[in-house]
Amino acid sequence: MKIINTIDSLRYELKLKREQKSLVSLVPTMGFLHDGHISLMKKAKEETDTLVVSIFVNPIQFGPNEDLDRYPRDLEGDVKKCLENGVDILFIPNISEIYPKNFQTVISVKEVSKGLCGDSRVGHFDGVATVVCKLFMMVLPDIAFFGKKDYQQLLLIEKMVEDLNIPIKVKGCEIVRELDGLAMSSRNRNLTPKGREIAPNLQKFMKMGVQLYSNGENRASIIISTIKKELENLDFKIDYLEIRDKNLKIVENLSQGDIMFAAVFLDNVRLIDNLEIF
Amino acid sequence: MKIINTIDSLRYELKLKREQKSLVSLVPTMGFLHDGHISLMKKAKEETDTLVVSIFVNPIQFGPNEDLDRYPRDLEGDVKKCLENGVDILFIPNISEIYPKNFQTVISVKEVSKGLCGDSRVGHFDGVATVVCKLFMMVLPDIAFFGKKDYQQLLLIEKMVEDLNIPIKVKGCEIVRELDGLAMSSRNRNLTPKGREIAPNLQKFMKMGVQLYSNGENRASIIISTIKKELENLDFKIDYLEIRDKNLKIVENLSQGDIMFAAVFLDNVRLIDNLEIF
Repeated sequence: MKIINTIDSLRYELKLKREQKSLVSLVPTMGFLHDGHISLMKKAKEETDTLVVSIFVNPIQFGPNEDLDRYPRDLEGDVKKCLENGVDILFIPNISEIYPKNFQTVISVKEVSKGLCGDSRVGHFDGVATVVCKLFMMVLPDIAFFGKKDYQQLLLIEKMVEDLNIPIKVKGCEIVRELDGLAMSSRNRNLTPKGREIAPNLQKFMKMGVQLYSNGENRASIIISTIKKELENLDFKIDYLEIRDKNLKIVENLSQGDIMFAAVFLDNVRLIDNLEIF
Repeated sequence: MKIINTIDSLRYELKLKREQKSLVSLVPTMGFLHDGHISLMKKAKEETDTLVVSIFVNPIQFGPNEDLDRYPRDLEGDVKKCLENGVDILFIPNISEIYPKNFQTVISVKEVSKGLCGDSRVGHFDGVATVVCKLFMMVLPDIAFFGKKDYQQLLLIEKMVEDLNIPIKVKGCEIVRELDGLAMSSRNRNLTPKGREIAPNLQKFMKMGVQLYSNGENRASIIISTIKKELENLDFKIDYLEIRDKNLKIVENLSQGDIMFAAVFLDNVRLIDNLEIF
């Protein structure tokens, strides 16, 4: 595994790989790797020859009152996990490599960025689109892999790639969960022991909502208010809890394939999750 | 020469070219080709093997009160000129190929888009950046060629390429002029005979301004007001007349290498030009 810090070296290494007709994949991450990331790497290794993983905590996708400074980091652990999982190139640029002085370009994917995390986190998705486009241009992978926990982010990237005709295939991979149902997230580390204990109830009560649907209740408002009440009893602070279709259109009456989206705060840590209605 | 209308066919043809290790260039145009465009094509043919010219009048770079409907078109003449000048692939997509339903992504290059045409034409440069990025992604040329008449546009594209790490070289080429000094532009065709007669005075009085500098006057305000007066006497309606440095910073006292930028209306036709201070 090569650990690389500059765009020039990255391009040089990739040029060598491409001369061997190697298929290249990219798994962009913000580090503090967990089994969710590792599932993406495994998938990427199955489908391509050269796996590039990037670790970059992207400042422009954090708002001024968000947790950029608190975002967990563990470079040593990340390197070990990459080594163990067949990563060929680990790209760890510093901030000035990605955003040199006088950087000024922004990509906005207008409609997909509205609602859900787009409303709660102003500017977040512009920051995501911009950095992902940059990473795409640096690596020009054949396939890039993203997790479905950040479902809106996945849609955003798919739409950006489609709209800008970026010649890269984007694949979304299923959410990986802890044994107790909590969706894997680097931010889980920031929970207190008590918070960590309560956190799986998010998924539990989202599942209860799906059960209500199976039992014949199809009014989104009823299902949502029922779940909210349960979560608030457990001291979850709800950022949003909504049911939308696959294209993020809000639905009033549920049908199969719609998705329940949640963002909550627990111990000041923001957790998101989603669950398909089946 | 292949004439191609779809992105898929374009990519297919380029794939074949690339398998022959062909160096690819792109000259993006809005058609109604003139000697300015042809100089770009010649340069591109000198430096690369496969020349792609695109013709697409990009609606999103025109404001609501601008001349999209009046923008001159001559597809037959354009095809002939491309044939005569060694174009390998002429890409003429229709609007829905470039902007399918639900298109929603915008690229903004914030600082470069301020001032000059960016102030006069709201949203113009977002439209330019977005369509040029799309064309870049479709063709992935080794080199793309742009004229210096649209100097701010050239800076914008250079900055976008730098900021987004797009792996393409951008080259700016000198302004080509009519014998009487008028900068070549597709819009010149929309001038009345009388307007066409007056138009070269724009360049003439800009040159006079440079002469003032040679004679010892270095105050931008004096030089600008002198030129403005002359132009207004000839019924030019001034949109802007400014002197800026190469990075578009406004200068009060001229020095060599600064650039005089003008945009004027004549017969309701908008003309732009620029001239380096030497």
